[in-house]
Amino acid sequence: MEKIIFPVIILNFKNYIQSLGENGLNLAKIAEKVAIETSTEIIVCPHTTDIRLISESVDIPVFSQHVDANEPGSFTGNNLIEAIIESGASGTLVNHSEHRLTLDKIEGIISRAKNLDFMTCVCSNNLQASRAAAALSPEACAMEPPELIGSGVSVTTKPELVEKTITAILEMNPNVKPLVGAGVSTAKDVSEAIKLGSRGVLLASGFVKSKEPQEVLFEMAKALSENN
Amino acid sequence: MEKIIFPVIILNFKNYIQSLGENGLNLAKIAEKVAIETSTEIIVCPHTTDIRLISESVDIPVFSQHVDANEPGSFTGNNLIEAIIESGASGTLVNHSEHRLTLDKIEGIISRAKNLDFMTCVCSNNLQASRAAAALSPEACAMEPPELIGSGVSVTTKPELVEKTITAILEMNPNVKPLVGAGVSTAKDVSEAIKLGSRGVLLASGFVKSKEPQEVLFEMAKALSENN
Amino acid sequence: MEKIIFPVIILNFKNYIQSLGENGLNLAKIAEKVAIETSTEIIVCPHTTDIRLISESVDIPVFSQHVDANEPGSFTGNNLIEAIIESGASGTLVNHSEHRLTLDKIEGIISRAKNLDFMTCVCSNNLQASRAAAALSPEACAMEPPELIGSGVSVTTKPELVEKTITAILEMNPNVKPLVGAGVSTAKDVSEAIKLGSRGVLLASGFVKSKEPQEVLFEMAKALSENN
Amino acid sequence: MEKIIFPVIILNFKNYIQSLGENGLNLAKIAEKVAIETSTEIIVCPHTTDIRLISESVDIPVFSQHVDANEPGSFTGNNLIEAIIESGASGTLVNHSEHRLTLDKIEGIISRAKNLDFMTCVCSNNLQASRAAAALSPEACAMEPPELIGSGVSVTTKPELVEKTITAILEMNPNVKPLVGAGVSTAKDVSEAIKLGSRGVLLASGFVKSKEPQEVLFEMAKALSENN
Repeated sequence: MEKIIFPVIILNFKNYIQSLGENGLNLAKIAEKVAIETSTEIIVCPHTTDIRLISESVDIPVFSQHVDANEPGSFTGNNLIEAIIESGASGTLVNHSEHRLTLDKIEGIISRAKNLDFMTCVCSNNLQASRAAAALSPEACAMEPPELIGSGVSVTTKPELVEKTITAILEMNPNVKPLVGAGVSTAKDVSEAIKLGSRGVLLASGFVKSKEPQEVLFEMAKALSENN
Repeated sequence: MEKIIFPVIILNFKNYIQSLGENGLNLAKIAEKVAIETSTEIIVCPHTTDIRLISESVDIPVFSQHVDANEPGSFTGNNLIEAIIESGASGTLVNHSEHRLTLDKIEGIISRAKNLDFMTCVCSNNLQASRAAAALSPEACAMEPPELIGSGVSVTTKPELVEKTITAILEMNPNVKPLVGAGVSTAKDVSEAIKLGSRGVLLASGFVKSKEPQEVLFEMAKALSENN
Repeated sequence: MEKIIFPVIILNFKNYIQSLGENGLNLAKIAEKVAIETSTEIIVCPHTTDIRLISESVDIPVFSQHVDANEPGSFTGNNLIEAIIESGASGTLVNHSEHRLTLDKIEGIISRAKNLDFMTCVCSNNLQASRAAAALSPEACAMEPPELIGSGVSVTTKPELVEKTITAILEMNPNVKPLVGAGVSTAKDVSEAIKLGSRGVLLASGFVKSKEPQEVLFEMAKALSENN
Repeated sequence: MEKIIFPVIILNFKNYIQSLGENGLNLAKIAEKVAIETSTEIIVCPHTTDIRLISESVDIPVFSQHVDANEPGSFTGNNLIEAIIESGASGTLVNHSEHRLTLDKIEGIISRAKNLDFMTCVCSNNLQASRAAAALSPEACAMEPPELIGSGVSVTTKPELVEKTITAILEMNPNVKPLVGAGVSTAKDVSEAIKLGSRGVLLASGFVKSKEPQEVLFEMAKALSENN
């Protein structure tokens, strides 16, 4: 599978109605348009039921919001990695704040994903957990302070935490791309994240629930490329 | 949404590779063919990523293998009921043995599903749990002894348990359709289940992993209609 | 084991420091004193590590805050019912809002508890879940609207919900004692609960974090017996 | 709190009846006797309800089988670290194969434990997960292949896995003591583990369910000290 080029903006569509079905497809097309116009890498994470629809309609990477660790077999209602791949996704969020996983399952997902040439972005809640996540060698680790998720207050208001976490991730494994998220909603937030060493941002409501998602994303993408 | 007509055969595609993508579509088409030829109601439960593909391609009911209880909003990696509906499913399994849920979430799913005109088939592991499930008034309650799931030994080898459970479900709420599952793999298993009062069966490997899924399903469907 | 006499006040000590070790023992002795003086039934639910200490020191019923469903055996860190009994408790809360359990485990706990002559009080979050809980025939079912837990706003501010839930529980099984909880902090709250048909109340911070726990509990116990 | 001296034998009493109450106390006294006679460090992990009883009766370290990550407060049925300490334990197993935890909770437990001078031994299932666990800097990390737990086939039958895992843990953090467990039931298993670089072993049924627990433990303790 084609590798992601960092820095990157990852757009988590969550369980919002505003990102469901046709709405999600429109948001994905906006993301594709901005990605092309600004020559930046933008990834969308749609509802699971929309992965195929969106990956067939746009030419930017599509990630799942969650996968399970199990092998194919007698499991019901799980997101089998092979199924996520088959529907067109090239990677996944893992251990998002709203879908925490046990350590052995995070490890199992990353290990299976490597064998399947499938990318993993593990979410973490603080510096120490980011080190542990990086020790498992996913493609990326996105640190998101849980108290800021959806708050509108950007993770970059904690520059020391961001810098130390990025340093810790890179010391653990320089191949793991450090990302940050939580409260990211403006181009300024993106600029600051990149200046602090982040290789990208993870956001959701700042894009999905924006009244002007294209304008917002365009400004963010410009900030991403200008500060790279 | 069109209501399910009982008795019914529910085919759980689980996380099998044999039921993924094109394979799943082929199995769903076999199910549709058999449903038409035998005038029986057959429901397929594909991989979540395949729900849209399959519901657009066949004219039989499609169920999700699992949904979450949450409202639309800031949730990541969950199966939002509205998303499952939007992709074409008309119902869902709930609390399958391989995806157990807390009581409050089962209640929340059934309650939200009713408001959304979405059908629920709650799985349960024994007589008492079936009573509790039936107290929540889902469309159907499928009792599956966990030790028999995937065993090839049919739930109908426990006729007393099946009969008592069906009686208990109907006494609790005569509108809840009692189903049974676990180890169902032959037409004889289906006949016996219907004779014992079951309004249908839930099966997975007996169909998905069969070398002759069409033949097997055809015989089961005939047994279903003949014993009704 | 001696049966609980209803109506009852159940005091959940939770994970508060104010109810830990010596503090918990003192609170249990206060509860015992008030129980004797007012001839009311008061149950304490200490930290698990304090069950033995407290049950050896007071002559009122001691409940666990949680038990697991498993049989004795190869399980680590679970609250085995036999261990809870061995340390002196005569019953347990099940499925508290802060410790939700899957339906099959709730059923398993109640079923094992009956065989071990151990009492169960299942917590539930609304009317429908209370019906399902009552269908499993625990000794008591305590309905607690989650949004009111710890709020200081009593469940009795929703008298219609309380009355309907109590009716639903008793219709399901007249042997199940209906209780209510959430925000209960005054004698008036207790009076109203009993007048609405509740056979007792479940509270935590209203007692544990009170500056005058003995006075508060004394007034509640009087209200319980006067309105019975 | 007094620090553990490595190498160490950690005895997990699990949910066995053979280790409950008086039985557990007797086993703890055997462990104390052997620890004194052989001048080895032996830790017992009793049922939670027995921690106080046992820690007051023996002069060897007592660990909990599990703790929760939460602060004191409005949590029900959790093992608050402060409560475990108050009852006399000096440390805990974390993330045992039979009680897996999410990464953020493992991190939270270790972080809280450090502040409370409370020791943590994190269990892990393979080399990669052991690296992640060691990145969180617990006192010890015990790698246990899940398929061997309770099997009677010792982890030391996989010497290459044991050596590589120990090396990986120490490379991550030389202060973390590497332990192994699963299937350990003879003095030979202990000798081999120590020779492979392990700083101790974790076992359960090999001691608790032995017909001659004192003899078995004595031989293991001798093997531990002789090979150190």
